[in-house]
Amino acid sequence: MDSLKERIFTELDQRKDEMIAIRRHLHEYPELSFHETETSQYIRDFYQGKDCKVTANVGTGYGIIVDIQGGKPGKSLGIRADFDALPIEEATGLPFASKNPGVMHACGHDGHTAYMLILADTLIKFKDELPGMIRIIHQPAEEVPPGGSKDMIEGGCLEGIEHVLGIHVMSTMDVGKVYYHKGGIHTGRATFKLTITGKGGHGSAPQDANDAIVAGAHFVTVVQTIVSRRVSPFDAVTVTIGSFDGKGSANVIKESVSLEGDIRLMNEDNRPIVEKQFKQILEGIAQTFGVSYELDYGNDYPVCMNDPELTDKVVSAIQSANITEIRGVEDAGPQTASEDFSYYALERPSCFFWVGAHTPGTPIYPHHNPKFTIDEKALIISAKSMASAVLACLEEV
Amino acid sequence: MDSLKERIFTELDQRKDEMIAIRRHLHEYPELSFHETETSQYIRDFYQGKDCKVTANVGTGYGIIVDIQGGKPGKSLGIRADFDALPIEEATGLPFASKNPGVMHACGHDGHTAYMLILADTLIKFKDELPGMIRIIHQPAEEVPPGGSKDMIEGGCLEGIEHVLGIHVMSTMDVGKVYYHKGGIHTGRATFKLTITGKGGHGSAPQDANDAIVAGAHFVTVVQTIVSRRVSPFDAVTVTIGSFDGKGSANVIKESVSLEGDIRLMNEDNRPIVEKQFKQILEGIAQTFGVSYELDYGNDYPVCMNDPELTDKVVSAIQSANITEIRGVEDAGPQTASEDFSYYALERPSCFFWVGAHTPGTPIYPHHNPKFTIDEKALIISAKSMASAVLACLEEV
Amino acid sequence: MDSLKERIFTELDQRKDEMIAIRRHLHEYPELSFHETETSQYIRDFYQGKDCKVTANVGTGYGIIVDIQGGKPGKSLGIRADFDALPIEEATGLPFASKNPGVMHACGHDGHTAYMLILADTLIKFKDELPGMIRIIHQPAEEVPPGGSKDMIEGGCLEGIEHVLGIHVMSTMDVGKVYYHKGGIHTGRATFKLTITGKGGHGSAPQDANDAIVAGAHFVTVVQTIVSRRVSPFDAVTVTIGSFDGKGSANVIKESVSLEGDIRLMNEDNRPIVEKQFKQILEGIAQTFGVSYELDYGNDYPVCMNDPELTDKVVSAIQSANITEIRGVEDAGPQTASEDFSYYALERPSCFFWVGAHTPGTPIYPHHNPKFTIDEKALIISAKSMASAVLACLEEV
Amino acid sequence: MDSLKERIFTELDQRKDEMIAIRRHLHEYPELSFHETETSQYIRDFYQGKDCKVTANVGTGYGIIVDIQGGKPGKSLGIRADFDALPIEEATGLPFASKNPGVMHACGHDGHTAYMLILADTLIKFKDELPGMIRIIHQPAEEVPPGGSKDMIEGGCLEGIEHVLGIHVMSTMDVGKVYYHKGGIHTGRATFKLTITGKGGHGSAPQDANDAIVAGAHFVTVVQTIVSRRVSPFDAVTVTIGSFDGKGSANVIKESVSLEGDIRLMNEDNRPIVEKQFKQILEGIAQTFGVSYELDYGNDYPVCMNDPELTDKVVSAIQSANITEIRGVEDAGPQTASEDFSYYALERPSCFFWVGAHTPGTPIYPHHNPKFTIDEKALIISAKSMASAVLACLEEV
Repeated sequence: MDSLKERIFTELDQRKDEMIAIRRHLHEYPELSFHETETSQYIRDFYQGKDCKVTANVGTGYGIIVDIQGGKPGKSLGIRADFDALPIEEATGLPFASKNPGVMHACGHDGHTAYMLILADTLIKFKDELPGMIRIIHQPAEEVPPGGSKDMIEGGCLEGIEHVLGIHVMSTMDVGKVYYHKGGIHTGRATFKLTITGKGGHGSAPQDANDAIVAGAHFVTVVQTIVSRRVSPFDAVTVTIGSFDGKGSANVIKESVSLEGDIRLMNEDNRPIVEKQFKQILEGIAQTFGVSYELDYGNDYPVCMNDPELTDKVVSAIQSANITEIRGVEDAGPQTASEDFSYYALERPSCFFWVGAHTPGTPIYPHHNPKFTIDEKALIISAKSMASAVLACLEEV
Repeated sequence: MDSLKERIFTELDQRKDEMIAIRRHLHEYPELSFHETETSQYIRDFYQGKDCKVTANVGTGYGIIVDIQGGKPGKSLGIRADFDALPIEEATGLPFASKNPGVMHACGHDGHTAYMLILADTLIKFKDELPGMIRIIHQPAEEVPPGGSKDMIEGGCLEGIEHVLGIHVMSTMDVGKVYYHKGGIHTGRATFKLTITGKGGHGSAPQDANDAIVAGAHFVTVVQTIVSRRVSPFDAVTVTIGSFDGKGSANVIKESVSLEGDIRLMNEDNRPIVEKQFKQILEGIAQTFGVSYELDYGNDYPVCMNDPELTDKVVSAIQSANITEIRGVEDAGPQTASEDFSYYALERPSCFFWVGAHTPGTPIYPHHNPKFTIDEKALIISAKSMASAVLACLEEV
Repeated sequence: MDSLKERIFTELDQRKDEMIAIRRHLHEYPELSFHETETSQYIRDFYQGKDCKVTANVGTGYGIIVDIQGGKPGKSLGIRADFDALPIEEATGLPFASKNPGVMHACGHDGHTAYMLILADTLIKFKDELPGMIRIIHQPAEEVPPGGSKDMIEGGCLEGIEHVLGIHVMSTMDVGKVYYHKGGIHTGRATFKLTITGKGGHGSAPQDANDAIVAGAHFVTVVQTIVSRRVSPFDAVTVTIGSFDGKGSANVIKESVSLEGDIRLMNEDNRPIVEKQFKQILEGIAQTFGVSYELDYGNDYPVCMNDPELTDKVVSAIQSANITEIRGVEDAGPQTASEDFSYYALERPSCFFWVGAHTPGTPIYPHHNPKFTIDEKALIISAKSMASAVLACLEEV
Repeated sequence: MDSLKERIFTELDQRKDEMIAIRRHLHEYPELSFHETETSQYIRDFYQGKDCKVTANVGTGYGIIVDIQGGKPGKSLGIRADFDALPIEEATGLPFASKNPGVMHACGHDGHTAYMLILADTLIKFKDELPGMIRIIHQPAEEVPPGGSKDMIEGGCLEGIEHVLGIHVMSTMDVGKVYYHKGGIHTGRATFKLTITGKGGHGSAPQDANDAIVAGAHFVTVVQTIVSRRVSPFDAVTVTIGSFDGKGSANVIKESVSLEGDIRLMNEDNRPIVEKQFKQILEGIAQTFGVSYELDYGNDYPVCMNDPELTDKVVSAIQSANITEIRGVEDAGPQTASEDFSYYALERPSCFFWVGAHTPGTPIYPHHNPKFTIDEKALIISAKSMASAVLACLEEV
């Protein structure tokens, strides 16, 4: 296999500029989640005439799966790249900046698709020497709950697949390094919208009204106790009220306020605890202040779990692959953000890892920032790291 | 004087319909505070050619004073009628509803001016028989701080005047009754605008942010203690936060929130206490949560005080005047709302009283409501009550 | 009557020292509410052999009523003096300081009884010249709910009585003045004891416990909104949590906390509102935090109301009585404290007034303070004021 | 070494009953931290005449170190057993229950000392065959900050020592298993005592007082935000207010309240953050409510960190030692409690592990419970596990 890996690396090295060109093209034409018509077509066009099995419109959306059948017995492996963009007005000033106003690849999914297409083409080229089967999972709509992965799974993308691998390029981690973590790597999430309704009235006669701002404020203060008193200190949980809409007139007691928020957790055991406490507190606030409420509370992404054994295998493969662009493979610990790769990981022992994309010495713009960008060396690193991981995982042990 | 009063009443009775016509005209063409150009002109036109001294543009605005010199020695008395309207879209469906979109006489100032013009004309007619001097104070901009009365006082409208009388028609009190109270009758007021600024961030990483919604919510809960613990239970004080603008995204920790509110009090001793406590709490919240703030805190209307002796004289005059439209004169207690008549009362022993304008058996729409209206019988009652009070107050004791 | 009043005053002047001697004796031997055996016997002994009808053990306690039948037709009037003391260790250093350890006449009831005995004896002396009937009400247990007055009323002390008058000497008001107020003069009251129970546990594992201190603290913060948002700003209400007993170990989550508190109000309309809100908030806190509670909430003294007409009569009688020791009769406004005279006032149109007992230029020690004392000139002032009031009230109008 | 280990195990098996006898003796005569005179003397007596170097009164207290010099070159290793008891009235009903009223070995330190004495004697017996040097650290005062370990370190107990090993028997973990964790194993701690002082007063006149209970309650609610908003969700932190002493009278506004509490953390980076936030909040509450405070805030035990490499070596040694009483070695995860072994671990790469002492099928009484007890099989397991670990760690690699 080592010689095969070397030949794949050589092929990838030769097509490095092609990866960058694809990435820049996609960057210029970003599309919002659930609306990726052009991007999806671009991917399908890429595979035109290649020796692989392409299935488009997987699930209800624009997802594409590409099966590459190896010539030798081995495992069946999914490798996933997402391709949607965000509702952000780009402010990078790059020559290939977004041409679609208000839409931007501010999370690096353009890079994911770019390296993946060239890697896929390379794997097709060497497919007779490969063991097992590789399914490329081109997934739309990662950014918006319920997430495209769920839909693609329902559309059958995991049928016959034993493991899934995925990469995220990271503008907050140094280029030249690959990062991993075992166990929980991205938080699970719930979100809520809440309206608390009292009774409006004149500010000088509170006894005839029922002040929704006062009730809402107490809700905010009490809700802090979920994290401080209701979950194990060893479990990561956040409860954020990101929106408290109680705009009104200075001298009018507010009839109702609308709150929105977001819950993150790294241990699924806490999900029912937090939901129960949240609802109990809200019911209690309603009782306390004599207000009514409407709550829309929804659990979305599960905790994203990396299978420890598979992760060991992936890390070991990358470490021993002699990827010259890499100077380290490090445990980055868990990340507070959420990722819909978690749905694959729920179904199959999977591994998701991170490729550093920050150019040292430059300012760090986090993901979803209008100035977000990536060091394009991350593309060849992603391709080679994933290739190494794929080769290690395909072989039967 | 009794015979004079009877003749004045007869004159007023004869011009009852004229009052109503004026009121309806003004109602159709309401103008916002500080922009009462047409209304002011209408009033000036009314006095055209009449035997009185008219001074327009008193102060910096549209105020008018009209001096009626009696033929006999006596006191000098101001009687005030305000004439501005409100930024409200009328919803009464009346044939004479507002023709100015988004502007409405929803507080009865049209009625005040209507009865006052006919009363003034009547007093002019009988002026040689009157003792002392009467100054009609046609005041703009009652609804908006700092209030037109303050400006008119600075413009000299109280020079040479010993007392001021005023009336408010009340849609919440029964027509056929006149209402009074001695001492504090309308609350003093302060208003504030406040921005609390922490640091924005991702909802899943609160340690890197500083949640302005949490700080703002605690501010709201603590501010309740001003009324509950800081002022005498025998003193009326309210602190209302009418606006809590913290609209944002569910998963983003809010960088800043803007609050607006309103303070009312019936004892001026509490004004510095409440202001000091408010600022102390805000400073404390800033310290507690490490947030910064910008505060715009302004004291506006003082407590409106009715001089007890003058009020006794007015009440007694109305009670004994044989006004056939009246079936009672009652102590209505203090009112929680504020009124810029308070500035006159600060300068001169004054009396402000209320004329019921609610038709029994109909729904009550409070002042500033889009369906606010008045029973027009209140006009003749206002005119006769004020006439009786004027006659009693003009006489030297 | 004027000549009778003069002769009564002369008699009282002659027995001034006797009043002081009685007051000092009682001061030396104070007894706690519901345990006034010696004091009660002392009062009974005083009336031994006098021409009046003495009924002891009125109600279930140590109360005594003394009927003095006038020789002429007139009204029937109760006049009340209370005689219990407080569980306070006296710190005045007076030569006649308490000889009963831990018990002290720190509220002036010794003075009430002292002036009343001499006044009673004087009225007995002149009884044939008096109209109507006077019932001296020597009441025990004013300090401790449910209060001795309630029990004496149930024991019949108001039977045949039209009005009740009472005096309180006041260490916070200047000697030489008599004070009154019409309407509500002393607040009504409710008290509560409350235990909130969660679940104990180790401080480092809050998720396995349920922190009663956190629930109790939120209860305290929410309860402030009763006064700030639930009652009219024109109505005096206080809600005080005077005791929060949550003593425990630093590193152990507290299982339960016990709170005690006190509610005052000057408008009985607020009583059910406050009780309902209090219970609603407590139920809401239980729901919010998943804690249980036990509540003992009791309404005790009603608002003490002075009948306006009777008060006018009493004030006018005192003002016109030429009491040389008095230099003014003033409206002191309502008082925040409570007084079980309220039960008499609930049953009969009554009047309770205050006699200043503070020596100008000396420190003011409020009632219930270990250094509380009274200026003994208050005794003769009380006797003469009450005599004047009695004479005025006895006469049929 | 394997043969040596076997002979050591055989010796330990033969002296199993002796361990139990020592443990029961110590259990009968427990002594409080910093007052362990008899226990210390008992330990010294045990070593009387044995071939080792005993140093008593290490540091300022009752600590003893015993050096056993091996006959071959190797590492220098400290092994620690603590010997203090707790101020708890024993309620086990055991025949060897505490004879010292109010004092109890409710944390298993009797067992630690018992197994250690027999293990020490055994190691002395075989010392010529042992590589390196073993220092037995008999430590007093583990239970009470600042902890005996700190004092012993200052007394020189780590001089010449490369690593320290320690065991805790656990009534909450199953007997027959040994438990470990790498990295942070016991939390670091801070404790505080706090008095908040406002101004006392009558419950009906809050404006003249400054309610310390209200200020204290808001402090409790705000302090929740340290955990909910100020530290990373991935870091374990607790802030518990275990005592809120505000006992007073229902109708008296409380002048001051005293709080005590406890902070735990598993990442020392959070220590200054929590302390800064705690003090900032307290200063903010003082500002907000105009109260003063006195704070005694003390950091005590650091986070107890197990050196990963040394722990791997210890775990591997125990796993491969063929200890027949053991059926598993498991990662127990971190523990929320604190342990002053942390001071050794701060100075030297160390390993502390847990020996299950709960008899399956019986109720679990946690440490510090009056019914706490241990399954005495834990003694031989402790001795053999520690022996295995010692042999592995002494050898130079």
